[in-house]
Amino acid sequence: MKYLGCAYYPEYWGTERVELDAMMMREAGINLVRIGEFAWSRIEPEDGRFTLDWLHACAETLEKYEISVLMCTPTATPPAWLTTTYPNTCLVFPDGRRAEHGLRRHYCSTSDTYRRFSARITDFLSQEMSQHANVVAWQLDNELGPEWSWCHCENCQARFQAWLKKRYGSIQELNRLWGTGFWSNDYSDWRQVRLDSHIGMYPSQVLDSKRFWSESMISFALQQAEIIRRNHSQALVTTNGMGPLYTPIDYYEMFGKLDVACDDLYFDLATLDADVAAMNIFRSLKPGRHYWITETGSGALDHNRAPHPDQFRAWAWSSLAHGAEAHLIFRWRTCLSGQEQELQGILEHSGTPRHRYQAVKNCFLELKRLRDEFIDLPLPEALVAIVQDYQTSWAYESSRVGKDVDYPGLVFRLHKALFDRNIVADFIPLERALEGYRLVILPSTVMISPGFATRLDNFVEAGGVVLAMGQVGMRDANNNYLSYPGPDHLQELLGINIEGGMYLGSFVAPDEAMYAPAPKKGEVEVKMSGSLESKPMEGNASGWVADLTFNGGEVLLSFAGEPYAGQPAVVQRQHGEGSTIYVGALRLDDELSDNLLDYALANAGVQPGPSTPEYVEVIRRGEVTFAINHTPQPVRIELGGTGKALVGSFQDGVAELGPYGVCVVKGKT
Amino acid sequence: MKYLGCAYYPEYWGTERVELDAMMMREAGINLVRIGEFAWSRIEPEDGRFTLDWLHACAETLEKYEISVLMCTPTATPPAWLTTTYPNTCLVFPDGRRAEHGLRRHYCSTSDTYRRFSARITDFLSQEMSQHANVVAWQLDNELGPEWSWCHCENCQARFQAWLKKRYGSIQELNRLWGTGFWSNDYSDWRQVRLDSHIGMYPSQVLDSKRFWSESMISFALQQAEIIRRNHSQALVTTNGMGPLYTPIDYYEMFGKLDVACDDLYFDLATLDADVAAMNIFRSLKPGRHYWITETGSGALDHNRAPHPDQFRAWAWSSLAHGAEAHLIFRWRTCLSGQEQELQGILEHSGTPRHRYQAVKNCFLELKRLRDEFIDLPLPEALVAIVQDYQTSWAYESSRVGKDVDYPGLVFRLHKALFDRNIVADFIPLERALEGYRLVILPSTVMISPGFATRLDNFVEAGGVVLAMGQVGMRDANNNYLSYPGPDHLQELLGINIEGGMYLGSFVAPDEAMYAPAPKKGEVEVKMSGSLESKPMEGNASGWVADLTFNGGEVLLSFAGEPYAGQPAVVQRQHGEGSTIYVGALRLDDELSDNLLDYALANAGVQPGPSTPEYVEVIRRGEVTFAINHTPQPVRIELGGTGKALVGSFQDGVAELGPYGVCVVKGKT
Amino acid sequence: MKYLGCAYYPEYWGTERVELDAMMMREAGINLVRIGEFAWSRIEPEDGRFTLDWLHACAETLEKYEISVLMCTPTATPPAWLTTTYPNTCLVFPDGRRAEHGLRRHYCSTSDTYRRFSARITDFLSQEMSQHANVVAWQLDNELGPEWSWCHCENCQARFQAWLKKRYGSIQELNRLWGTGFWSNDYSDWRQVRLDSHIGMYPSQVLDSKRFWSESMISFALQQAEIIRRNHSQALVTTNGMGPLYTPIDYYEMFGKLDVACDDLYFDLATLDADVAAMNIFRSLKPGRHYWITETGSGALDHNRAPHPDQFRAWAWSSLAHGAEAHLIFRWRTCLSGQEQELQGILEHSGTPRHRYQAVKNCFLELKRLRDEFIDLPLPEALVAIVQDYQTSWAYESSRVGKDVDYPGLVFRLHKALFDRNIVADFIPLERALEGYRLVILPSTVMISPGFATRLDNFVEAGGVVLAMGQVGMRDANNNYLSYPGPDHLQELLGINIEGGMYLGSFVAPDEAMYAPAPKKGEVEVKMSGSLESKPMEGNASGWVADLTFNGGEVLLSFAGEPYAGQPAVVQRQHGEGSTIYVGALRLDDELSDNLLDYALANAGVQPGPSTPEYVEVIRRGEVTFAINHTPQPVRIELGGTGKALVGSFQDGVAELGPYGVCVVKGKT
Repeated sequence: MKYLGCAYYPEYWGTERVELDAMMMREAGINLVRIGEFAWSRIEPEDGRFTLDWLHACAETLEKYEISVLMCTPTATPPAWLTTTYPNTCLVFPDGRRAEHGLRRHYCSTSDTYRRFSARITDFLSQEMSQHANVVAWQLDNELGPEWSWCHCENCQARFQAWLKKRYGSIQELNRLWGTGFWSNDYSDWRQVRLDSHIGMYPSQVLDSKRFWSESMISFALQQAEIIRRNHSQALVTTNGMGPLYTPIDYYEMFGKLDVACDDLYFDLATLDADVAAMNIFRSLKPGRHYWITETGSGALDHNRAPHPDQFRAWAWSSLAHGAEAHLIFRWRTCLSGQEQELQGILEHSGTPRHRYQAVKNCFLELKRLRDEFIDLPLPEALVAIVQDYQTSWAYESSRVGKDVDYPGLVFRLHKALFDRNIVADFIPLERALEGYRLVILPSTVMISPGFATRLDNFVEAGGVVLAMGQVGMRDANNNYLSYPGPDHLQELLGINIEGGMYLGSFVAPDEAMYAPAPKKGEVEVKMSGSLESKPMEGNASGWVADLTFNGGEVLLSFAGEPYAGQPAVVQRQHGEGSTIYVGALRLDDELSDNLLDYALANAGVQPGPSTPEYVEVIRRGEVTFAINHTPQPVRIELGGTGKALVGSFQDGVAELGPYGVCVVKGKT
Repeated sequence: MKYLGCAYYPEYWGTERVELDAMMMREAGINLVRIGEFAWSRIEPEDGRFTLDWLHACAETLEKYEISVLMCTPTATPPAWLTTTYPNTCLVFPDGRRAEHGLRRHYCSTSDTYRRFSARITDFLSQEMSQHANVVAWQLDNELGPEWSWCHCENCQARFQAWLKKRYGSIQELNRLWGTGFWSNDYSDWRQVRLDSHIGMYPSQVLDSKRFWSESMISFALQQAEIIRRNHSQALVTTNGMGPLYTPIDYYEMFGKLDVACDDLYFDLATLDADVAAMNIFRSLKPGRHYWITETGSGALDHNRAPHPDQFRAWAWSSLAHGAEAHLIFRWRTCLSGQEQELQGILEHSGTPRHRYQAVKNCFLELKRLRDEFIDLPLPEALVAIVQDYQTSWAYESSRVGKDVDYPGLVFRLHKALFDRNIVADFIPLERALEGYRLVILPSTVMISPGFATRLDNFVEAGGVVLAMGQVGMRDANNNYLSYPGPDHLQELLGINIEGGMYLGSFVAPDEAMYAPAPKKGEVEVKMSGSLESKPMEGNASGWVADLTFNGGEVLLSFAGEPYAGQPAVVQRQHGEGSTIYVGALRLDDELSDNLLDYALANAGVQPGPSTPEYVEVIRRGEVTFAINHTPQPVRIELGGTGKALVGSFQDGVAELGPYGVCVVKGKT
Repeated sequence: MKYLGCAYYPEYWGTERVELDAMMMREAGINLVRIGEFAWSRIEPEDGRFTLDWLHACAETLEKYEISVLMCTPTATPPAWLTTTYPNTCLVFPDGRRAEHGLRRHYCSTSDTYRRFSARITDFLSQEMSQHANVVAWQLDNELGPEWSWCHCENCQARFQAWLKKRYGSIQELNRLWGTGFWSNDYSDWRQVRLDSHIGMYPSQVLDSKRFWSESMISFALQQAEIIRRNHSQALVTTNGMGPLYTPIDYYEMFGKLDVACDDLYFDLATLDADVAAMNIFRSLKPGRHYWITETGSGALDHNRAPHPDQFRAWAWSSLAHGAEAHLIFRWRTCLSGQEQELQGILEHSGTPRHRYQAVKNCFLELKRLRDEFIDLPLPEALVAIVQDYQTSWAYESSRVGKDVDYPGLVFRLHKALFDRNIVADFIPLERALEGYRLVILPSTVMISPGFATRLDNFVEAGGVVLAMGQVGMRDANNNYLSYPGPDHLQELLGINIEGGMYLGSFVAPDEAMYAPAPKKGEVEVKMSGSLESKPMEGNASGWVADLTFNGGEVLLSFAGEPYAGQPAVVQRQHGEGSTIYVGALRLDDELSDNLLDYALANAGVQPGPSTPEYVEVIRRGEVTFAINHTPQPVRIELGGTGKALVGSFQDGVAELGPYGVCVVKGKT
């Protein structure tokens, strides 16, 4: 791992402590420290007066201990003098109240005033801090996005109206494309159209609001990026994203314009497979580029227990195995005051090194010792790509029924099945090139563009396999349903028409009511049956089922129960050297889902990795194999081969992993 | 069934599609189409400019296919140009925020401006559309009522104050009747008294607010009705209510002034017996008049499954059996855009006829084929009337403890017991004549007027039986408790004094707390015992029990447990040719409840219908008997008689009903 | 019991009813009536016009029936003419809306206008009513505190800023002590600092807001107290608190400046042991002084069942046994109207005496008959003191993680264990003298002052025993964590350093997520083992565990499981004649907790009372022993001794108690 590090707040702890901290950091193997993140009020204590001595001194002391710096712009936390003098720099909540000092990320990113102050401090900081050779990278703001709410101020409304005008040209065209003929929703003046994210408003309006907000925030970040690049061209410019799947901002768009994809990934916030998905996502955001973990925890975030020291180590190895080149702990020392005074840093409140310091040090020194072994390893190779589409996320989040579909859950569920097989997957947007993959998975991707359809056609023709599920291509670009059968642009390639479909939320039984007084019962399942490679096969669909007709495809399974008994349920179509498989359901039961995935993998010629218990993973990067046990039970994995253990125990092709154990093998496995 | 139909939105789908749609409608048996409902922005795209060509054309095309029109005023959805130019036409929420464009039913019904625009478009539309012979009826607005909130604007406040002034004459009289001496609540100026519906405000204030809002909305509707009647005297004027039991607006009051009672009744929103209650209620709203179902679903409303085609058909037959003369599906085609884009119409998004079209067509053609058989049938005969009182609903909704009583639940529970016995019941307001009924049921009717008491006395004297339960006559007309024992005006007729009572929400045990930290336990039951017709009888009361003393009545059952052990629990009093039975509890267990109901029915000489499994119903209209199975299990019902099956299988007096099966017999059963 | 009584509202029921009511009161044993509480609009129907004839007449009639008066200021319910004329007398909610007429306690206690009106009516009332010899005491306002919300108006903001200025001197000092360096929270102007109670704001800011609000309300009350004392020096001045543990206002502070501690204690709102804690707390508020129960219920508050008459009597005896000299029922007659129209008084709505009147009368006449026996009894003697600290309550309530700790629950849990042993405990603030106690319990008291530490040291040196648990002394006076190991000022006395700690809310398992999608699992336990007096001992800690190092103490138990396996868990330190025991956990399992408490009691030489089943209590006051059964099961208690029963059955040293039975023995037990 190139960088091992942590976040550090010299503005909080004072200058006199820096030397001791830096010394202890180096002893723990730390070589990258993130600073300045929330320090605006100490960098610019009053309008236009900058005090940077302490920051220069800190950078110099870190340099002395051979520690590099990830320098941050402090704009996530405007000081009180700024927001109280210019209240319209604060965001407006959906109910019209304006945010006040005391929060973070409570600014309006479209405010001209805020952008002016943000640009000035970014300019000043980057001019000053670029003088330090150990400042190797910049973080823009912190965890950009709507921590409390997107802004609904009149300035944002006006910019949204301008954005719509540019997008649609005329109000008539907006009316046409949004389909405003329902409930007299037609607009006759741009000023009538407002940003809104309430479910129950027009789905097109909500979707475009989400697009606007995402673009506004990216534009805010890029304004800073431009300034820094001008002042400090040799440094990397990035920001810290949030994982596993942060939907308010299109990360493909944003990180596409930055130098490295960074994730704040607290492994205990999600299940382990979702954490692995996060790492695969952030690696995929910038193809061919290592990603960074800019924040992870060594202790408790909240009421939860801190990770076991060996568990913390397993996470770090997993991070490396999936392609990270930086692994930073949040934060050096636990804060005494403030909103996060109980989020544990590496050191105690008292500054004493105790259990967490020891755990971090053990882990980091081990990684440091082996740094040269891994520095030039190729990234893990992915033959499978899962389409992860922000437009689909936003479309679902914008409509009354769709909002309960849990699109991220569909994506994670498919990823989990690959993870269970030790198959590394990439996550890709619809715009990404498909070359190099053998299997492309489309989990209920509701908007299909002609361009994507063409590229998918070429991919299949050249031998690729497509596995598509659910409500693929059922909506247009404005979140409206098609006025003809779907899947849009893919009717022929997938060999079907999606005529309609039905959610399976509840039966309609005489002793039930959808709402009060009787409770709504759980969802129902629909049986399907058929055969895969002549083997009889059956199982259940849930969530939603498709009303399909054939359009050139061949049936693998048919529905065996209402409402579409006898109709096709799973359809395959051969095309060129490859084929497509479409599943007419949002979800399948585990067994059928596994069988279909295995069938698709076999069709695509993708081999699973070694068989391991749940939450034990094996990943290869070039000639190095990483086996990581994320469970408290010891396991024994047959990897085969004649490689040599760099870490852990590997003999006669067998890796022995204790609780949370790690085995890293160089050479053939 | 006279009318079979659906809602249709030509303003949304465009003129060129109308011909094809009309043709497909007629093929499906449709002869009534509801149009114009939400079309304001397309009828009047800017202030005072009307475009009606498309609507005239649509009416003409429908005429060509022999389809009648239910024309709607579009005032539920004011266009953006109206509400943004005149923001005070939008309602104000309880928290003071004003509603904005993008919702529906978000107008203020007392706004002079809104009433002016509403009158103008109603006048214009009715002048124009009355020219079409196939326009047979008008729907005012759509589902009148507070979809989001009642309005709290200053205009409504001022009108409320004027309304109070008219009602009470002086502020002193208001203080006296509201009993404002508690918590210094006295008013000294009308401007201090405000509309409020928060529990925790004065119960009299909340009750009068509800009365005012109901009246305001009815007055808004009647303004439109008057205009239409002037312009189009031969058409029916109505509006679509909501069912089973919509409490914000007094439907007896409103539909009493309109020509036909219409219900938007989605059978899957409530249990089937509540749906049947809805049909009995809407038939009862206008005595002797058929009711209409103006909206019901052929598909999914939401995440729920669509009904089985045979289930859909069973609902339609039930609708006919209970006295409907119109059965309209919401809506012809599934919308592509807007808030209801996933609420399924008869056709798919694509306009393709698939499963739902087939189900509607099969059902409608069957009903159409038999139309002549049923057109002159008498309505079902009800010998039992359940009092359903808006004042009681509002009184309960207005008080802190009462709000949890679930008055509609009490009403439905009693109806369900009659439905289980295949006894048709009417629902009546306190003002309705009692002649013709044999049993009148009073479910915890809290406000009893002297007039009603007199009529009830006459009814009993003439041989009628009254079954009264719970908190009958315990409050005055202003939602305050009596300063003397109840039941108000009925102490003598019911033969009791209600001295007080006790809710049974929870025990007072040493290891329990009403609120945190310990959880509140469920409610407790109180035992009662005695005999009915010399047969020993016992059971449990729940919800609330009465502290009774005798006032001429005779005990049937006494309380056998605390807090009123040994006191009367169920009291009967003979009066003239009839008698009254009072039950001193809000609810009884099923067995005791059944026994008491049977006793009351026997006293009243009301015979149950044929015995059927739960959710299988038998109803008679004149010489036709309808047997309908709302369950997926086949059943066999012995009806007896020598009638002939018009629908289904009937032999040797036995109807055989498949899953969701229907059997209609003409002649003796 | 000196006073037996009830609340009475002559302004509501009218003058003509007073005579009858007074007569019935006297018959029921009542000798103290609370009046005037909410009567502002009837005392001062318009600005400056006072009408007091009815009140004088009422006091005179009560005098005639030998009934004393607890006179109230009516300021909890300002009349409509006041709040509508001066809207800024109403409080402002956190969202900026202003309260309106119709609530109670909706005023702003810092409003100059409100204080002027409050002072004027208090002055007038106390001049007038002091003329009546039977007015023996005054109640200020009613249940002071934020019923709906604390006030956030600009006037309060300005006063808060002035309060901070006085407390901190300079904004720099505020920044330093609040630790504002996190998230750029530094202030540069007093006007930037605002009252706020949202979790998620700065913990120091929220804590100081709570301090300010508590002080403001006390200051409001004391303004009234001063006026009354000037006009009516011989009367007691008090107010009615709320129990068991009302945290918004520091009752030690407030009742310290009033003449008697009064509690509105509805026994069914909490578990019985919490009710007993309430009585111990209110007795402790003013050491050596009897407390009053100013409100308790004879009937149902809400949906709950009223207490059994014998249960009601058992509560009254418990009240006397714990040191009450007044026991007042809320309220004489059930109100017909208003927000509490279903909260049962002694009489029915109709004014009829029924079950509750009988229960009250039986109980009160019994207590009256024995009045002379008890009037000079000493208060119960407490050898054990539980520290109950408002600063700790507020500190926990002000921080994101701490808010879930349930500090009152920790306090009640320890009290319950003493209650189960029939040991009477005092509750004391940190400022209270410790002399006379043998055991002092510190339940996670997070702020320890140097003064308290010194007094605790002296207490132990002189032979006292301290039992401390959890996060003792971990925060400074501004709610920030120490920058050195805790427990602050007690490191030496307790013989430990608290280096840090860990909450046990949840595991970090690979198949779990802290938040969505997977549900958060329950908390985990950590094993500890060791020995007490050579007896092997083990058990489990939960909630939070401490990361301890020794500082002179000796281990009793050590942690046997992660995260601190092998480290000290329970540490004892001898000091002078006494010792301290520190438990490094927020909670222990019941068995271990019991064993440790018994060990501490034995060390302190405190003997448990007689052994009784749960919720059966035995208390001694001088030579009288009270045995009270709060359960519906009969019990037999061996008290021993040769005393004589004043109430109930006592023979051969054995008390026989029926369901909810009471036995009072005079003489040796």
